[in-house]
Amino acid sequence: MYLFTNDYSEGCHPAILAALTQSNRSQQPGYGADTFTAQAIALLQAQLADPTADIHLVAGGTSANLLAMAAFLKPFESVLAAQTGHICVHEAGAIEATGHKIEVAATADGKLRPADLAPLLAKSPPFHTVRPRLVYVSNPTEIGTIYSRQELTDLSAYCQANGLLLYLDGARLPMALTAATNDLTLADIGRLTDAFYLGGTKCGALLGEALVITNPALQPDFKYHLKQRGALLSKGRVLGIQFLTLLQDDLLLTLARHANALAQRLAQAVQDLGYSFLTVSHTNQIFPVLPYRVIEQLAPDFGFYVWKPIDAEQAAIRLITSWATPPEAVDDFIAALRAHSPAR
Amino acid sequence: MYLFTNDYSEGCHPAILAALTQSNRSQQPGYGADTFTAQAIALLQAQLADPTADIHLVAGGTSANLLAMAAFLKPFESVLAAQTGHICVHEAGAIEATGHKIEVAATADGKLRPADLAPLLAKSPPFHTVRPRLVYVSNPTEIGTIYSRQELTDLSAYCQANGLLLYLDGARLPMALTAATNDLTLADIGRLTDAFYLGGTKCGALLGEALVITNPALQPDFKYHLKQRGALLSKGRVLGIQFLTLLQDDLLLTLARHANALAQRLAQAVQDLGYSFLTVSHTNQIFPVLPYRVIEQLAPDFGFYVWKPIDAEQAAIRLITSWATPPEAVDDFIAALRAHSPAR
Amino acid sequence: MYLFTNDYSEGCHPAILAALTQSNRSQQPGYGADTFTAQAIALLQAQLADPTADIHLVAGGTSANLLAMAAFLKPFESVLAAQTGHICVHEAGAIEATGHKIEVAATADGKLRPADLAPLLAKSPPFHTVRPRLVYVSNPTEIGTIYSRQELTDLSAYCQANGLLLYLDGARLPMALTAATNDLTLADIGRLTDAFYLGGTKCGALLGEALVITNPALQPDFKYHLKQRGALLSKGRVLGIQFLTLLQDDLLLTLARHANALAQRLAQAVQDLGYSFLTVSHTNQIFPVLPYRVIEQLAPDFGFYVWKPIDAEQAAIRLITSWATPPEAVDDFIAALRAHSPAR
Amino acid sequence: MYLFTNDYSEGCHPAILAALTQSNRSQQPGYGADTFTAQAIALLQAQLADPTADIHLVAGGTSANLLAMAAFLKPFESVLAAQTGHICVHEAGAIEATGHKIEVAATADGKLRPADLAPLLAKSPPFHTVRPRLVYVSNPTEIGTIYSRQELTDLSAYCQANGLLLYLDGARLPMALTAATNDLTLADIGRLTDAFYLGGTKCGALLGEALVITNPALQPDFKYHLKQRGALLSKGRVLGIQFLTLLQDDLLLTLARHANALAQRLAQAVQDLGYSFLTVSHTNQIFPVLPYRVIEQLAPDFGFYVWKPIDAEQAAIRLITSWATPPEAVDDFIAALRAHSPAR
Repeated sequence: MYLFTNDYSEGCHPAILAALTQSNRSQQPGYGADTFTAQAIALLQAQLADPTADIHLVAGGTSANLLAMAAFLKPFESVLAAQTGHICVHEAGAIEATGHKIEVAATADGKLRPADLAPLLAKSPPFHTVRPRLVYVSNPTEIGTIYSRQELTDLSAYCQANGLLLYLDGARLPMALTAATNDLTLADIGRLTDAFYLGGTKCGALLGEALVITNPALQPDFKYHLKQRGALLSKGRVLGIQFLTLLQDDLLLTLARHANALAQRLAQAVQDLGYSFLTVSHTNQIFPVLPYRVIEQLAPDFGFYVWKPIDAEQAAIRLITSWATPPEAVDDFIAALRAHSPAR
Repeated sequence: MYLFTNDYSEGCHPAILAALTQSNRSQQPGYGADTFTAQAIALLQAQLADPTADIHLVAGGTSANLLAMAAFLKPFESVLAAQTGHICVHEAGAIEATGHKIEVAATADGKLRPADLAPLLAKSPPFHTVRPRLVYVSNPTEIGTIYSRQELTDLSAYCQANGLLLYLDGARLPMALTAATNDLTLADIGRLTDAFYLGGTKCGALLGEALVITNPALQPDFKYHLKQRGALLSKGRVLGIQFLTLLQDDLLLTLARHANALAQRLAQAVQDLGYSFLTVSHTNQIFPVLPYRVIEQLAPDFGFYVWKPIDAEQAAIRLITSWATPPEAVDDFIAALRAHSPAR
Repeated sequence: MYLFTNDYSEGCHPAILAALTQSNRSQQPGYGADTFTAQAIALLQAQLADPTADIHLVAGGTSANLLAMAAFLKPFESVLAAQTGHICVHEAGAIEATGHKIEVAATADGKLRPADLAPLLAKSPPFHTVRPRLVYVSNPTEIGTIYSRQELTDLSAYCQANGLLLYLDGARLPMALTAATNDLTLADIGRLTDAFYLGGTKCGALLGEALVITNPALQPDFKYHLKQRGALLSKGRVLGIQFLTLLQDDLLLTLARHANALAQRLAQAVQDLGYSFLTVSHTNQIFPVLPYRVIEQLAPDFGFYVWKPIDAEQAAIRLITSWATPPEAVDDFIAALRAHSPAR
Repeated sequence: MYLFTNDYSEGCHPAILAALTQSNRSQQPGYGADTFTAQAIALLQAQLADPTADIHLVAGGTSANLLAMAAFLKPFESVLAAQTGHICVHEAGAIEATGHKIEVAATADGKLRPADLAPLLAKSPPFHTVRPRLVYVSNPTEIGTIYSRQELTDLSAYCQANGLLLYLDGARLPMALTAATNDLTLADIGRLTDAFYLGGTKCGALLGEALVITNPALQPDFKYHLKQRGALLSKGRVLGIQFLTLLQDDLLLTLARHANALAQRLAQAVQDLGYSFLTVSHTNQIFPVLPYRVIEQLAPDFGFYVWKPIDAEQAAIRLITSWATPPEAVDDFIAALRAHSPAR
C-alpha cells in the first residue's frame, strides 16, 4: 500500500541525515546560537535579499503561526483569514488560545482578496468590536491554489493602506514557488509580507519551519516568545543543520519541484480519464472528484483522504505527493485508476 | 577548547542516527500515530510496569512542563516549587504565561519536603488567594542533588493527603536513576507521582522528552492540549524512533551512567585538590568552588558557567558531562586544574 | 430630544435608590457575604424552585458571559453561537480572550435550533479541531425574538444528548418572560439550561446581573473565577440590595412588562403606517424598516441606531424602550413618525 | 457589635446617594460617554494639573490592577512588587492569570526602594528569564505605611533610569495623601508614576476606582481592554456620578481625613496602654500587638482581623476605620481595650 495521504509520511531527505551525521560531534551552544543555524539564517537572508530579516527556526507550523500572532498582536486585535485557512480549522483553536479572534471570509478558491477583507473592516462601534490587524494567507492555500504576483501585490498594498499586517503561512511555500503557474520569488514573499514562514517539515526536513519577520517593528524580543511558549529547542542545531542543507544548492526547491511534478502527472491522468477537480491546483495537492465506487476500489491499495462529499455519487479526494514519492507509486495509482474507471 | 557548559552541546548518540536512517523511507501516519512511537510507548509502559500510563513525546522540557500544568490545573490553582526550580527561573515565565501562579519555597538543596510545603498551604481567606494544587520537583534538581526513595515517598504521601498533584521534571532523570546514591527506580517515579517527564534531549537524543501521565484523572484529551499549543509534531516518528532506540537495551541508562561517571571523576579530582563544592552532587552536574584566579586560567581551554559568586576570592562553577563527553576531555580538565592549583 | 437608543440610558428604579438609602449604614461583610445578597439569592432560588442553584451577582453581561465560559470550559473546548450572538459581535473578543473559539451558525431569526448545531458537531479529525462544548443562546435574541418553550426544550434535549452545555444570556430575560407570545417561566429557564444570567442592568438596576448555575458539576469554586478576573465587588451589597428589590413583588417583571408594552405600542403604530420590520419582536426592541428620508426627519428629535441598511431607499432602525420610558415619549415618536410618513 | 474589619462595610457617603437620586432620570449615553463621567474626569485632570491624563473609571481595585498590567506589558514582561503587595497575595493570582510573572522583594515595611529592585534586575541569560518591566507599589501599603515625597521621587527616577514603568495601587490613596506625615500631593503621584488608581470604594463610594494613565505611550486604546475583560459598565454614569461627587469640594480627602483621625485616635489609646504595633501607620489601618487574652475579650463586641501571630502570647490585629466610622465606636473600643488591659 502506498500513502498519498500527506507530505510528511516519510523521514527526511538523505542529505539531511548525512549532514546530521557529519556534524554530530561538533560542540555547539544551544538555543539557536550554533554556527549551523547562523549559516542557515545568513543563507536565507541572502536569498531574500534582506540582510536584516529576523529569522527563527521552529519545530512546526502551528507553532510558527501561534507564536507570530501572539507576539505581533495586542489583546484586542483580530486575525482575518479565509474560512479554509489552516488556523481556522486544523489547529485546535491555537490562535484563539492565545486570546485572539479570527474573523473569516468565505472564498471559493481559498485565497483572500481586498474585496474579501473590506466587509470585515467595517466595524462599529469602536472598542465594542475587536480591531482587525493581521491578515493570514496560505500559499499555496489549503486547497492547492497559489497567489499570483499581482494578487499578492494588491493584497499587500491593501493591507498597508489599511493598517493591517500581512502574514503568510508557507507550510508548502516551496511548492508554490515552483508551481508551473507561479510568478513569485522568495524575495517577493519577504518584500510583500510583514512575516511568513518557509516550511521545512513538508519539504524534506524531519521537522522545522523558518519564521521570517521582515517588518522591523515586529522583530524585537521575539526569542522571549519562543522560550515562553516552549518553542525554543535546546539543540537548535537540529533545525539549523536541516535548513542549511535545504537552502544550499536550492535543494528545497528541487524537492518541491519533484513533488509538484508527480502531482501534476497524477492530475493529467485524472483529467485524461474525464474526471474533474474540486480546485485547480498546480502544486503537490490535488483534489480529483471521483465516483464513490472508484474510491472504494482504490482504497485498499492507496492511502488518501476523502476530502469533501460532492453528491450522492461522488466525492473529492485529496492526493498528496512529496519529495519522497517514487514515480512508480504514481504510475501504479494511474494504472489502478484507469483500471477502475468505466470506459468513456 | 572543550565545553563542559551543557549536556546538549552535541548531536545524538550514533544509534539514533542509525535508527533514523534505517527507518527513513517507511511511510507512517503523522502526529504520533506511527508504529515507532507506539513501540516506544509500549516499552516505556513496560519499564514503568504500568500498561495504562498515558505517554506523549514532546520536543522539549519547557514544553512538557507548561503543557502539563496548563492541562492539569484549573485557572485559580497554583504550582508549588523550590525557588531553584527550572520553571521559576529559566523558562521565561512559561507557567505564568499559561495563567498559573508559582509559589516558591526556599530550600538549601533544591529539594522540596513536606515541611517546605506546609506554610504554603496555610491560606486564607478562600477565593482571595490562589489554591495550591500541583507540586513541582526536579530529579535531579537544578543543582545536582537527587531524591531518595524515602524522600519521594514522603512527599508523595503528603501530596495525596493534601489534595496536591505531584509532578516531576525529569530533564536529567536518567542521571538521577543511575547515580551512585540513588535507590529509586523508573517504576517508583511513575508510582509516586501523578505525572513526570523522562528527558531525552540531555541524554543522547536530538530532541525529545517523554511526558508520562499516570494519574488516570489527568489523562483524557491530552492530545488536544499538545495540538493547541503547537507541540504536536507532524513527523511524530522523529521522537518515536529516538525513544525507541534509547529505551531498548537500557541505552538511556547506559548513557547516563557514562555522564555520571565522568562528572564524578571530575569531582574526585576537585576534591583531591582540596576544593569544596556548592552542593553535593552524584549526578552529571557538579559545582566546584574555585578561586577566580584558577577560573580565569581554565577559561581559555574549557567552557563552563560561573554559577554563583561565593566571596571576593572564589565562585562556584558548573561543570556538566554528557553521554558524549570523551574521558580525555575530563583528563585534560583535571590536568589543567592541577596545574593551575597552588601546591597544598 | 428623547433617546430610544438603549434600555440603559437612565439610572435605576426609585425603589432601588430607596433600598440603597435605607440600608446605607448597615455594616456588612464584603464580597457577597452580606445579608442582602443572601436574601436576594434565596428569593431567586425560590422563584427557580431550585434551592441548590449556585448564584453569583456580577456587574455586567460581558463579565457574566466570559466568567461562565472561562470557568466551564477546558482550553480546547469551543462555544457554539448564532452569528448575531452578543459574544460574537459586541464583546470585543472577550470569549476568545479567555482562550476559546466561538463557532457560529447563520440563522435568520437569531435563534439556534438543533439543525443549526449538527453541522458544527461533525468534526474530524479529533484533537486537530476544537471540541464543541457549550451552546450560547440569548433570550430574547439580539434582534428581539424569543424562544418558545418547545424550542428551548428541544434545544436542551439536543444538548444533553450530545454532551453540550446550554448557556443562556438573559440580559433582557425579564422582557422575554413577559412578552405576549412567551410561554416560558423563569423556572423553565433554570431547568432547561446548565447556566444562565438574569439581567438587571437593562431592567431597572444601576448595574448587576444574576448568574445562575444550575448544573452541579459547574458550581464548585466559582467565586475563585470571580475574584481572579476582577469581578468580585468588595461592596457586594450594592448588587444584593438591587436584586433583592427587583425580585420582591415581581418588580423586575413589572418593569419588563412596561418596557414591552411601550415597544409594542410603537410597533403597532409603525405597522399601522404601513411599514415593515426587520424581525418580528414581541419584546422591548423593535426594528422598523423606514425610508432614509423619514429616518433623517426623526433624527433631530429622537435618539436611535440605524441598525442595518436594507436597500438604497430604506434601513432598519432599532427602537428600545425601558422601565423608564414615559408613555409620552412614545406618543411623541408616533406623532412624529405619522407626520413624516407619506399618506398612503 | 461594631466592625473595624474593613473600610467597605457600609454603603456610601450620603452626598453620593443624593447625586444618584438627583441625576436618575437624565438620559445618558452608556459605557462612560455620559456627561457625569466627563465632568469627573475633567475635575481629576485639573487636580492632577495634567489635562492629557487618560482616565478610566472601573468597578474595583483588582480589576484596575489586572487591566493595567495586562494592557501595559508584553507577554514576557514581569511585575516587581513587595511580597506584601495586594497583587501578590489577595487577588487570587489575577496578574498571573493575565500571563505575567510577579517577582517579589521582601521588605520590612511594605515599601519598595531602588535597593530592593536592583537584585531583581540582575538577570541572565536573556530570553530564558522574564524581563522586569513594571514596578507595583501601594500607597498606603497593605500594612498602613506611606511613601514620602523623596522616596517616591527616588523610586520614580530609578524606574526611569532602568526602563521600568511605575504603577501605584491607590485603593486607599486618599488616606495616604491626608496622613499626618504625608508630603505628597495627588499631582505628585501623577507626575511620578506612569499610571495609578485613585480608590473610591474604600473612601466613600458604593464602588469605583479611577485609573489614571499619565504616560502617553500607555494610553491608546485602553477602552478595548476594559470592554474585552468585562470591565466596561453599560451605565458608566454610576461611576461618573460618584467620582464627580467625591472630587467636588475635596469630599474624598475630607472623608479620608476622618478615617485617619479616628484610626490615629485608636492608635494613641493603644500606645497609651503600653502596647506596640506591627508597623507604624499614620493612615486608617493600624496593627496593634495585643495579648490573645485581650483579643478574645474584645472579639464579642468588635469585628477585626487577627492579622499575624507574634508569639505564643500575642498577635497583631488589624483595625480599620472609614469615612463611616462614628467617633462613638472608637470611644467604645478604647474603653473596652482599657477595661481588658492589665494595669501597668
